Amino acid sequence: MPSYDLLNTYNTIRAGTVDLCMPLCTEDYGVQPIIDVSPPKWHLAHTTWFFETFILVPYMKGYKVFNSDFAHLFNSYYESCGDRVLRSERGNLTRPTVKEIYAYREYVDQNIRKLLAGSVLESSLQELFIIGLEHEQQHQELLQADIKYIFGTHPLLPAYRQETQQQINPKKNPQFIKINEGVYPIGATESAFSFDNEKGRHNTYIHPFEIADSLVTNGDYLEFIKNKGYETFSLWHDEGWAFINHHHLKAPLYWQKREDEWFYYTLQGLQKMNENEPVGHVSFYEAHAYADWAGMRLPTEFEWEVAAPHFSWGERWEWTQSAYLPYPGFQKESGAIGEYNGKFMVNQMVLRGASCATSLQQKRITYRNFFHPHIRHQFSGIRLARQGK
Amino acid sequence: MPSYDLLNTYNTIRAGTVDLCMPLCTEDYGVQPIIDVSPPKWHLAHTTWFFETFILVPYMKGYKVFNSDFAHLFNSYYESCGDRVLRSERGNLTRPTVKEIYAYREYVDQNIRKLLAGSVLESSLQELFIIGLEHEQQHQELLQADIKYIFGTHPLLPAYRQETQQQINPKKNPQFIKINEGVYPIGATESAFSFDNEKGRHNTYIHPFEIADSLVTNGDYLEFIKNKGYETFSLWHDEGWAFINHHHLKAPLYWQKREDEWFYYTLQGLQKMNENEPVGHVSFYEAHAYADWAGMRLPTEFEWEVAAPHFSWGERWEWTQSAYLPYPGFQKESGAIGEYNGKFMVNQMVLRGASCATSLQQKRITYRNFFHPHIRHQFSGIRLARQGK
Amino acid sequence: MPSYDLLNTYNTIRAGTVDLCMPLCTEDYGVQPIIDVSPPKWHLAHTTWFFETFILVPYMKGYKVFNSDFAHLFNSYYESCGDRVLRSERGNLTRPTVKEIYAYREYVDQNIRKLLAGSVLESSLQELFIIGLEHEQQHQELLQADIKYIFGTHPLLPAYRQETQQQINPKKNPQFIKINEGVYPIGATESAFSFDNEKGRHNTYIHPFEIADSLVTNGDYLEFIKNKGYETFSLWHDEGWAFINHHHLKAPLYWQKREDEWFYYTLQGLQKMNENEPVGHVSFYEAHAYADWAGMRLPTEFEWEVAAPHFSWGERWEWTQSAYLPYPGFQKESGAIGEYNGKFMVNQMVLRGASCATSLQQKRITYRNFFHPHIRHQFSGIRLARQGK
Amino acid sequence: MPSYDLLNTYNTIRAGTVDLCMPLCTEDYGVQPIIDVSPPKWHLAHTTWFFETFILVPYMKGYKVFNSDFAHLFNSYYESCGDRVLRSERGNLTRPTVKEIYAYREYVDQNIRKLLAGSVLESSLQELFIIGLEHEQQHQELLQADIKYIFGTHPLLPAYRQETQQQINPKKNPQFIKINEGVYPIGATESAFSFDNEKGRHNTYIHPFEIADSLVTNGDYLEFIKNKGYETFSLWHDEGWAFINHHHLKAPLYWQKREDEWFYYTLQGLQKMNENEPVGHVSFYEAHAYADWAGMRLPTEFEWEVAAPHFSWGERWEWTQSAYLPYPGFQKESGAIGEYNGKFMVNQMVLRGASCATSLQQKRITYRNFFHPHIRHQFSGIRLARQGK
Repeated sequence: MPSYDLLNTYNTIRAGTVDLCMPLCTEDYGVQPIIDVSPPKWHLAHTTWFFETFILVPYMKGYKVFNSDFAHLFNSYYESCGDRVLRSERGNLTRPTVKEIYAYREYVDQNIRKLLAGSVLESSLQELFIIGLEHEQQHQELLQADIKYIFGTHPLLPAYRQETQQQINPKKNPQFIKINEGVYPIGATESAFSFDNEKGRHNTYIHPFEIADSLVTNGDYLEFIKNKGYETFSLWHDEGWAFINHHHLKAPLYWQKREDEWFYYTLQGLQKMNENEPVGHVSFYEAHAYADWAGMRLPTEFEWEVAAPHFSWGERWEWTQSAYLPYPGFQKESGAIGEYNGKFMVNQMVLRGASCATSLQQKRITYRNFFHPHIRHQFSGIRLARQGK
Repeated sequence: MPSYDLLNTYNTIRAGTVDLCMPLCTEDYGVQPIIDVSPPKWHLAHTTWFFETFILVPYMKGYKVFNSDFAHLFNSYYESCGDRVLRSERGNLTRPTVKEIYAYREYVDQNIRKLLAGSVLESSLQELFIIGLEHEQQHQELLQADIKYIFGTHPLLPAYRQETQQQINPKKNPQFIKINEGVYPIGATESAFSFDNEKGRHNTYIHPFEIADSLVTNGDYLEFIKNKGYETFSLWHDEGWAFINHHHLKAPLYWQKREDEWFYYTLQGLQKMNENEPVGHVSFYEAHAYADWAGMRLPTEFEWEVAAPHFSWGERWEWTQSAYLPYPGFQKESGAIGEYNGKFMVNQMVLRGASCATSLQQKRITYRNFFHPHIRHQFSGIRLARQGK
Repeated sequence: MPSYDLLNTYNTIRAGTVDLCMPLCTEDYGVQPIIDVSPPKWHLAHTTWFFETFILVPYMKGYKVFNSDFAHLFNSYYESCGDRVLRSERGNLTRPTVKEIYAYREYVDQNIRKLLAGSVLESSLQELFIIGLEHEQQHQELLQADIKYIFGTHPLLPAYRQETQQQINPKKNPQFIKINEGVYPIGATESAFSFDNEKGRHNTYIHPFEIADSLVTNGDYLEFIKNKGYETFSLWHDEGWAFINHHHLKAPLYWQKREDEWFYYTLQGLQKMNENEPVGHVSFYEAHAYADWAGMRLPTEFEWEVAAPHFSWGERWEWTQSAYLPYPGFQKESGAIGEYNGKFMVNQMVLRGASCATSLQQKRITYRNFFHPHIRHQFSGIRLARQGK
Repeated sequence: MPSYDLLNTYNTIRAGTVDLCMPLCTEDYGVQPIIDVSPPKWHLAHTTWFFETFILVPYMKGYKVFNSDFAHLFNSYYESCGDRVLRSERGNLTRPTVKEIYAYREYVDQNIRKLLAGSVLESSLQELFIIGLEHEQQHQELLQADIKYIFGTHPLLPAYRQETQQQINPKKNPQFIKINEGVYPIGATESAFSFDNEKGRHNTYIHPFEIADSLVTNGDYLEFIKNKGYETFSLWHDEGWAFINHHHLKAPLYWQKREDEWFYYTLQGLQKMNENEPVGHVSFYEAHAYADWAGMRLPTEFEWEVAAPHFSWGERWEWTQSAYLPYPGFQKESGAIGEYNGKFMVNQMVLRGASCATSLQQKRITYRNFFHPHIRHQFSGIRLARQGK
């Protein structure tokens, strides 16, 4: 990729993050209602800090850091980079202000442009750029989920954006795609960018299975609710059962019943539930229980990757029944960048596909997303699978 | 009080609250770093809600509430007034925005002015006005303590206001004032405004005691620290000992040691500790332990009230060894206003006097402030007493 | 008191503790279902440790401690006496066994008898004896409350002892005793044993009041329940309201409704509720709310002490509206014994009187019992008071 | 298996459980120091309840349950079997007494013997017997781990049994066994008993790897400690790092340093650490961090199963880097027995092999043990692996 393209791509992606924040008031930028949600302003600063720390500081001669405190404030989790503000304290960072953070973005962007205007980049630097931009796009998705949570749990349920043309989703019954037993390759090839956790293309033995060509819909899920799915212990993991009972869960996040009719919060505000849309905002526990109730199961991430060319995907991240573990031969990168993925490979489940909030560039078949099984504020959904013959 | 004066007083006090917020950025208005601290914006709205709910709605014909959601959002604790947002969720109220809250204040203020411009107020309404203004001034004090906490626990320790001329406090040794045994009257007379909790002037039997004419200073308190006060179990209440150990406390709130020198956060930013200033931001537990170490004790609130005409006070709220309990004949007001004080009369200790953040009008000798014994972010201090003969 | 009497008293009181444990199985001795309840075996050992540590070790020449580990294991709260097992871990002390603890008691008792058989005791030692025996009797009461909790929360509700002849309590309406305003003496005189917290007889100013000559009954309390007392916010302290809602409380401890009839656990097992018995096992919060609902209030501890000669008491500890605070001139004893009472003088409420579980010797009018306001497993009750004229 | 053998096996295994409890005092039977540890008495009753509920009640005509309350008290987790005592409350079950539980065992054993003395068992019943006996043996192992925890965290560190002949473990360096890439069968065949979670023999693709022929020793692990392994963030999972810091962990469970020498609690009491023994009582987090520090990794459970015929195992359960997930085609059994394994397949890691506390019959190569990654009181250890070529 010539640096000219890199410049264009950089400008486009960085502007994309800012665009997502345009509907926000200053007040919306700062809150952290639960520990899993970060303040929008923190996303803006943290993604900028990434470019400053891993590119400008080491690679641009004479670069002066915008504000030396920011390394401390906006380092998300890189222990190797020194002290960091406790994750739970992000919502208390009144300063720097939103305006200062935008100034920070501008300052870093201008310097990056200067750097890119120079001679051809060495390949290690080019790689860092790409990681930085992938990282930025990951945060764009998180930003949308976090904004939805901030607005969707506010007592007034404010709308984030105006009503968009609602798509018509004709009801259709899923067809099941059959995949034969055999050895299949899994994981990213070296030809394009991928994260360390998807690397290491390798053979996997797949047993015969069938997988639905469409996602479980709100209407389907409503049947599960009506059928006492949330009250039927045998469908649930032991920890899932404890989870839904402790939090008194009876439906996906953002759903509410008003006088016998179901509504849900959307980024356009509260709306009547559309039965034909794919269900969203379910935890792994709920996805698993639903599949069990339907007499099926979730696919493994390997099954998903093998079958994905045969169905359409990209509206919801799809929970799999695979735990997030290293691929054979997985190697952490050296240095702080190496903290990127490996240290999260315990107690989390893999989601495959992409969502309505994912940037196009990240919609690739080998991408491995992962969350703790109780997480519901991501744009997650359910696809069913079953054993084949 | 003729309504003309009331208008002036209203305008002055309401403007005072806004003045305190002038140094704030929009971002500073919204956070709640601990449950005991409310966002500045919440104080602005809640005090306004008080006038709207208890005065405009019942007394002004044709008054239209500014926004019917606000009753829900800014009702602090009046269960009788319906649902309220959980105290712990105040920091997540991104909306209404700061601008909207100022518009709310303006709207209510204009209507109040209209109301006051009318005929003479009936006395029950006048009383409500006075309660509203006293309430507003109480929140002015809380606002300053809360702002100090928000700024003073931010990793960057921003200053709230510019350096003011530092007073010179010449070191002086306290003199002890002797009070004779006898029956003394305690509590507010009917001649001026007072809260329900100070009402009911009544006799109390006082035993001979002596009380210091000045407060314990930072220098005094430093001796206690150096003398291993925080490590000496026998000086502490059992719960105080557990409290300081659980939180690893070794000094008052806002104190920090940098290279063998003591500093503390002030509203002007971090400053070198002044040994001659009265110590502040101590919990009741610390005040008690200090007094025990000094071979003395804290005064009761009754002793304090009897002796107060004989010393100067008003820089720090002074912890007493009296629990916050009803006076003989204490009566709750009827209706929501009645929730004001009585329901807090358990597990809290009385503080007497006033602080640098108290409005002049509230600096009266019978005023009873109260907090849980672990609270340290208020402008609290220590005055010593001992038995007399 | 000649040492001969002391010996008899010692033998009687020590045997009394053992008697209370006779109905227990070995398994009942060891559990601690909540942190406020200690295992019966712990009471047996701790009271013995007290005599060993404060009397035998310092006063008996050549005394060999039974087991040096016990100082660590059975020191309840005397920080001055060194390390101690965390209170919350008492239920995990499988060893020493019950048998070993009885051997320990026997060993200490025999040595104490030898000591008493010697010459006349110096008065300081005699005082320690008396404190030890008072302490033992306090633990007898705690032991009964703790046993009741262990049995009364066991899913099988086993009986502790056989059915006793149930007393007949004819229903009677309380009469109100009037007490005039004036200065009254409060606190223990020097003529008999008393704890440090009751010492320092001193004048108190009492305002005119009236106090009921009998306790609130189960039948009375049932009216409060039926009248939605537990659902009426305005009757409760703010913290009381939070407490009953958090724990879903709807009745006193041990009460349960079975098919529209009320039962409660007694030491004889589950029994139909007797409406004429004084209500028991209520928290301070409930006592206060009940009194408020009845249009009255709880007495202060001073009012109680002044009025007590005029009514019968001793079935239930009676919650007062006085916080547990030091009397004028209160002095901690020096040394470890000095930790006895003072360090608890915060966040607790005073109970006056005595209960069905109190030893006769401790039923004195100046005795000050104290518990946190949420405690319900003690034999606590309610007596009403109101302002007089 | 003819029922004659079944009878012998039944008698032997049931007696084995009782044998393990012979060194216990009555007091040791009842405690639950952490939620993961069950009281020994609970194990005795629960395993008996299993035979009563799943065999005697449905299959023996005229069988009278020993005590109908026991179903409620000793149902561990079978939600389908009705209410159960909260896991966290097991330590408060003073009743039934140890003696009653032994009577319960005796009663059930006699009835089982009668049943077995009858005609040939139908195969479904025979299967239930085998599950019951496997279940009993699993509890024998848990019982030993739980007893070790109860004794090993008691302040007095009592010994559970007498000193046994300590084995001599000559120091040896591990050799690495090479396994070639290919498709290998995994899982239990139908020829012998296995649990549902090991069933479904299926192909798995294995990449070339090498695996150590012996376990990591205490001496090895000590190097990791000395080399600041517990202070080096980059070796740990993010959650592992939080875990060891929150609990201040610096060594495996039961290790303690006394004057520069390392000791550990063993079932014979505290002993000097033997550097040549395999390290035990480590969490998955510690096992993973150790492997990373050693420049290697843990094996997957599939690698382990393929390589196990080539090395000796059975002293420690060995943590793998595989999450506990269903095998292809996994089917829950119907009814309550079906709750056995599937509902735990989230957030747990697989351990392979067996330990010194495992019964011989359960030492099979396909057995899948599983625990949460923080669990340390099991007899767990570490075997290293690395990628091959």
